[in-house]
Amino acid sequence: MSTVRVAIAGATGYAGEELIRILRQHPSVTLTHLAASAKWERPVPLADVFPRFAGALDLPVVALDPSRLAESCDLAFLALPHGVSMDVAPRLLASGRKVVDLAGDFRLKDPAAFARWYGTPHTHPELLEQAVYGVPELFPDPLRRARLVANPGCYATSVILACAPLLKAQLVEPAGIIVDAKSGLTGAGRKAAPDMMFSEVNENLWAYKVNGHQHVPEVEQALAALSRNGQPAITLVPHVVPMDRGILSTMYLRAAGPLTWERLQAAYEAVYGQTPYVRLRPKNTWPKVREVIGTNRCDLALTVDETKGLVIVVAVIDNLLKGAAGQAVQNMNLMCGFPETAGLP
Amino acid sequence: MSTVRVAIAGATGYAGEELIRILRQHPSVTLTHLAASAKWERPVPLADVFPRFAGALDLPVVALDPSRLAESCDLAFLALPHGVSMDVAPRLLASGRKVVDLAGDFRLKDPAAFARWYGTPHTHPELLEQAVYGVPELFPDPLRRARLVANPGCYATSVILACAPLLKAQLVEPAGIIVDAKSGLTGAGRKAAPDMMFSEVNENLWAYKVNGHQHVPEVEQALAALSRNGQPAITLVPHVVPMDRGILSTMYLRAAGPLTWERLQAAYEAVYGQTPYVRLRPKNTWPKVREVIGTNRCDLALTVDETKGLVIVVAVIDNLLKGAAGQAVQNMNLMCGFPETAGLP
Amino acid sequence: MSTVRVAIAGATGYAGEELIRILRQHPSVTLTHLAASAKWERPVPLADVFPRFAGALDLPVVALDPSRLAESCDLAFLALPHGVSMDVAPRLLASGRKVVDLAGDFRLKDPAAFARWYGTPHTHPELLEQAVYGVPELFPDPLRRARLVANPGCYATSVILACAPLLKAQLVEPAGIIVDAKSGLTGAGRKAAPDMMFSEVNENLWAYKVNGHQHVPEVEQALAALSRNGQPAITLVPHVVPMDRGILSTMYLRAAGPLTWERLQAAYEAVYGQTPYVRLRPKNTWPKVREVIGTNRCDLALTVDETKGLVIVVAVIDNLLKGAAGQAVQNMNLMCGFPETAGLP
Amino acid sequence: MSTVRVAIAGATGYAGEELIRILRQHPSVTLTHLAASAKWERPVPLADVFPRFAGALDLPVVALDPSRLAESCDLAFLALPHGVSMDVAPRLLASGRKVVDLAGDFRLKDPAAFARWYGTPHTHPELLEQAVYGVPELFPDPLRRARLVANPGCYATSVILACAPLLKAQLVEPAGIIVDAKSGLTGAGRKAAPDMMFSEVNENLWAYKVNGHQHVPEVEQALAALSRNGQPAITLVPHVVPMDRGILSTMYLRAAGPLTWERLQAAYEAVYGQTPYVRLRPKNTWPKVREVIGTNRCDLALTVDETKGLVIVVAVIDNLLKGAAGQAVQNMNLMCGFPETAGLP
Repeated sequence: MSTVRVAIAGATGYAGEELIRILRQHPSVTLTHLAASAKWERPVPLADVFPRFAGALDLPVVALDPSRLAESCDLAFLALPHGVSMDVAPRLLASGRKVVDLAGDFRLKDPAAFARWYGTPHTHPELLEQAVYGVPELFPDPLRRARLVANPGCYATSVILACAPLLKAQLVEPAGIIVDAKSGLTGAGRKAAPDMMFSEVNENLWAYKVNGHQHVPEVEQALAALSRNGQPAITLVPHVVPMDRGILSTMYLRAAGPLTWERLQAAYEAVYGQTPYVRLRPKNTWPKVREVIGTNRCDLALTVDETKGLVIVVAVIDNLLKGAAGQAVQNMNLMCGFPETAGLP
Repeated sequence: MSTVRVAIAGATGYAGEELIRILRQHPSVTLTHLAASAKWERPVPLADVFPRFAGALDLPVVALDPSRLAESCDLAFLALPHGVSMDVAPRLLASGRKVVDLAGDFRLKDPAAFARWYGTPHTHPELLEQAVYGVPELFPDPLRRARLVANPGCYATSVILACAPLLKAQLVEPAGIIVDAKSGLTGAGRKAAPDMMFSEVNENLWAYKVNGHQHVPEVEQALAALSRNGQPAITLVPHVVPMDRGILSTMYLRAAGPLTWERLQAAYEAVYGQTPYVRLRPKNTWPKVREVIGTNRCDLALTVDETKGLVIVVAVIDNLLKGAAGQAVQNMNLMCGFPETAGLP
Repeated sequence: MSTVRVAIAGATGYAGEELIRILRQHPSVTLTHLAASAKWERPVPLADVFPRFAGALDLPVVALDPSRLAESCDLAFLALPHGVSMDVAPRLLASGRKVVDLAGDFRLKDPAAFARWYGTPHTHPELLEQAVYGVPELFPDPLRRARLVANPGCYATSVILACAPLLKAQLVEPAGIIVDAKSGLTGAGRKAAPDMMFSEVNENLWAYKVNGHQHVPEVEQALAALSRNGQPAITLVPHVVPMDRGILSTMYLRAAGPLTWERLQAAYEAVYGQTPYVRLRPKNTWPKVREVIGTNRCDLALTVDETKGLVIVVAVIDNLLKGAAGQAVQNMNLMCGFPETAGLP
Repeated sequence: MSTVRVAIAGATGYAGEELIRILRQHPSVTLTHLAASAKWERPVPLADVFPRFAGALDLPVVALDPSRLAESCDLAFLALPHGVSMDVAPRLLASGRKVVDLAGDFRLKDPAAFARWYGTPHTHPELLEQAVYGVPELFPDPLRRARLVANPGCYATSVILACAPLLKAQLVEPAGIIVDAKSGLTGAGRKAAPDMMFSEVNENLWAYKVNGHQHVPEVEQALAALSRNGQPAITLVPHVVPMDRGILSTMYLRAAGPLTWERLQAAYEAVYGQTPYVRLRPKNTWPKVREVIGTNRCDLALTVDETKGLVIVVAVIDNLLKGAAGQAVQNMNLMCGFPETAGLP
């Protein structure tokens, strides 16, 4: 059977490493090209970058060159820093390649919002409309037709999956949603920042970007597409937790009326009952991040405080899988007509 | 100079260890007696329990016996499991000893609330009224006169200190306060529970007691004493974070009107300006738990989202110091007329 | 294609969990039975024990009953505490089943040595001779014919693989080998011991069993089978390192004559050149445990100090894979005539 | 009482932070000056560098300027990178100041050895002879007279203290000593190196500098001063362990004749019996690094394998205290005629 030729740009980061791990065992994919950044000095065997792949994949890691990237593949994953892929994707699309972008470059429809949240004007705003926001459980049909997919942020994935059924079924107020999110360190990417050193992180814990995190607008945009009783408004406070992987988001929503756990369960079942990776845990059980590490799952749990009119939802994902590389491959599977779970753990 | 003779019951737990560490260097204290639980088999040198104290303190750890405890001391710290100290404290008080209880036994004024939250009826409800709830920054005068102090819970300390100035100054709505709290593992005490094993905790993170944590009623009771515009109502979701020590609580409160950071700062200054351990961090800086580990401090930071009418407050403490042993010694200092900071790091 | 029916006894431990993970995706295996210990109270869905397997495998975990175990399978993995499997294996063998035992029960040929190191007499010494010690790289032919395989200990695996080529080629003195071994916590198994609690292990490090670890005799026995210039004698000091998984063993051996790195490399190439999981890293590079976590690999590296006549070898493995479940499946593959790497990551 | 004016150069590193913590509470010291590196841009309040010192010490951190440093103090601690202090110390000494250097610059008597191990020629070899190597338990008299003290390396401290009594009493062979050393991350200093990131270190473990660590020559030099039966020769393999603080060194020495634990104990007692920080643990007990964290202690334990003629010694220290700042203050105490334990925890 013929396979799709796939390239990865940004292969040396954490998401890149996971993409290699998944794609080299994907039954319908041939990995053809691994690029780091444009500043990468010379081709280096993959095993020198990641010793774990020694003997498993015989490809060099080369400097990012959009033309060579386009030649090498039918579909490219861009796991590059924010602001880089918006200049790489256009050349790939112009050559007829498909693109899954793991950065924030194509997530927001509004170029002004992009400029505000990412601190730089968008260089290709004309592509924003055609980009499809990649939550396979919620937007499968546009993803099947997409040529350019904007893979969601890690926090955003956990929040959107947790809130979507409640907003869709008008069970909660769309405004005033509070998200207290906690993430391990790989969420910050593979770079040597002083406050990411082991001796600064271990036995530590802190909140950051309390005044606003760039995942807020993509969450509000995605939920707005599903909400039937008003514009969603999210407050999200992210926290750094001393662990490598994993996100746990705790959400506090106001009930739109009297609710029971069972009624909420039905709303989740309606949205996720036929999907492979998202599930609501049984009543009064709470997921731990470890239970989804190494998987493409998002596990959800909730409780209703009827006295206070409050719904509390907890979501856990592996930030590098359902929050990045896993969801990206799930999106590729839809784009290429493969089974949705192909190649995924 | 004469010193106060002090005993510790529950000396083999984490809070007990911290009490020993502090009290053996306290200028006005002589440690006279260390008791474990009533089931402790035979006297054991302290250095066999905690090798770090070898050569530093020559006291045996013995089985808990309330009569011997009362004989040995002028003041006793009870760092025992919930439900044990309510039967030990009465004998100490009857012998004229002072007591600082680190468990939950004397924190709630309402015996019915105690029974509901701690799962057992209170055996000495007549003592609940005289027990003083030990937040030195908020209730210093009653503490100076107290014979029985109920030392607050670790989560409760962080929440009460963070919210008190806002409620006192009527800057926020007392109802609908959301607290997302995160704690290291020593908060659960020193016991061999399966889900507290290293291999279950490391690289993990989870929410627990989502339907209600026993620190909620003591927070609501303490804040009610300060609130001027209604009865406080708290939703608190605690989380376990893979670290030994430290609590970070993130609080979401609804503004009672238009607010600025500066106005809030003034409210905190009014309450904590003359106190040694609680401070508001400068605008747009956020505390990390490490910055207070090993200290008796509570560091606070906040932001106002004027559009949403939301105040977000972050509080960090060392759960074993300001959240337990440190605050207990601070309370003892008030009870005994010592300088408030005596002996504290 | 027909598959082998496989049962796991001890399915609720760390090695059991890894066995389930591997075997449920093994192309030639059908998992038919999961047993815990004999004291397990009642059948429980696997997803209640390990939420990560929800939806992936629909088998209950039941109490260990050797007769039911024998009925359920063609081959059984016994991942039970030391001293239990010696009473389970005989019934399986008598029913014509094959057995891979992950405990120490069948590793030593000498029943007196077993009694000395494991503190209990062997109940079925007649089986010790037929048990094959399961290092696939060194003893592949007996393993292909084996009905009872004694899967090596985790430390032992790292030491034997590191030292075998040197002893086989008579490059080092067999006596006076020093092994300084370091392991993560899962090596101690899934049980709630006080000194395995997170708050006792994190930010800690210690040596244990300095006077002798039970893996020493199996190492000496295995290496004796390969040594041509005398009886190997090993000193092994194990250490607990605050991490979940992984073993790193550092070995110090006396050179039997003048040596170069290249000559040693040739010795390793001769033994492992055609094997899939063991390799010598390039000169002057040193493996990290993370590079083999999640794999069945053993990575080795070495240096020669010609002045001192010393060879230093470092070996890293994932203690739950090459040190337990992975090697066990590799052994099963040989026993059943499957490709050696079938089903392994 | 008049106090000694003390300055710290390199105040922003981990050792600098510990020096501040100790010295600000030292009864005979006034901290007068805190310098970072020469590249430090402008004076910054200490609390901006280390929020934990807010309100506790009102000194700015300024750029390193040797003249200002000399003016500010009677004694300076230099906690600077290797190769920097050799150009700072001469100016301080010329101004009559005392110096405790925590770097490697003045540890080796032989300038050629310095050049070989530190990769740069020594710029002031004339000072090497007068520098006193600062192990207070072994060289107290020269330290009392010293003007320039070379504070030992962290690994070196643990090895020298562990081996000295054995060599002094001629109980072991001085050649062929094997040291397997393990350290937490703060040993590498506070700098943003890619392989010191949390996500690279957590759940990881590795050996480094297997071909030779720069602490070997200082160990051999210090032990040579004590050895009576030949020149010590050490093989030391250091390892990185995923924890912040702490060193555990495991040493393997060949007995010079028949030995018992009790005879060895007597040798340790003879050397350390009257010293405050070094002790041998009781027979068959083994120290954990946590038991000395936060203290200036070195805890030792040992066993004798009579069959193999081997002595195994385990040493634990807090690398930032007995391995750096604590020992430096202990040395200052001797140099200044203070009680040896003054100011130390």
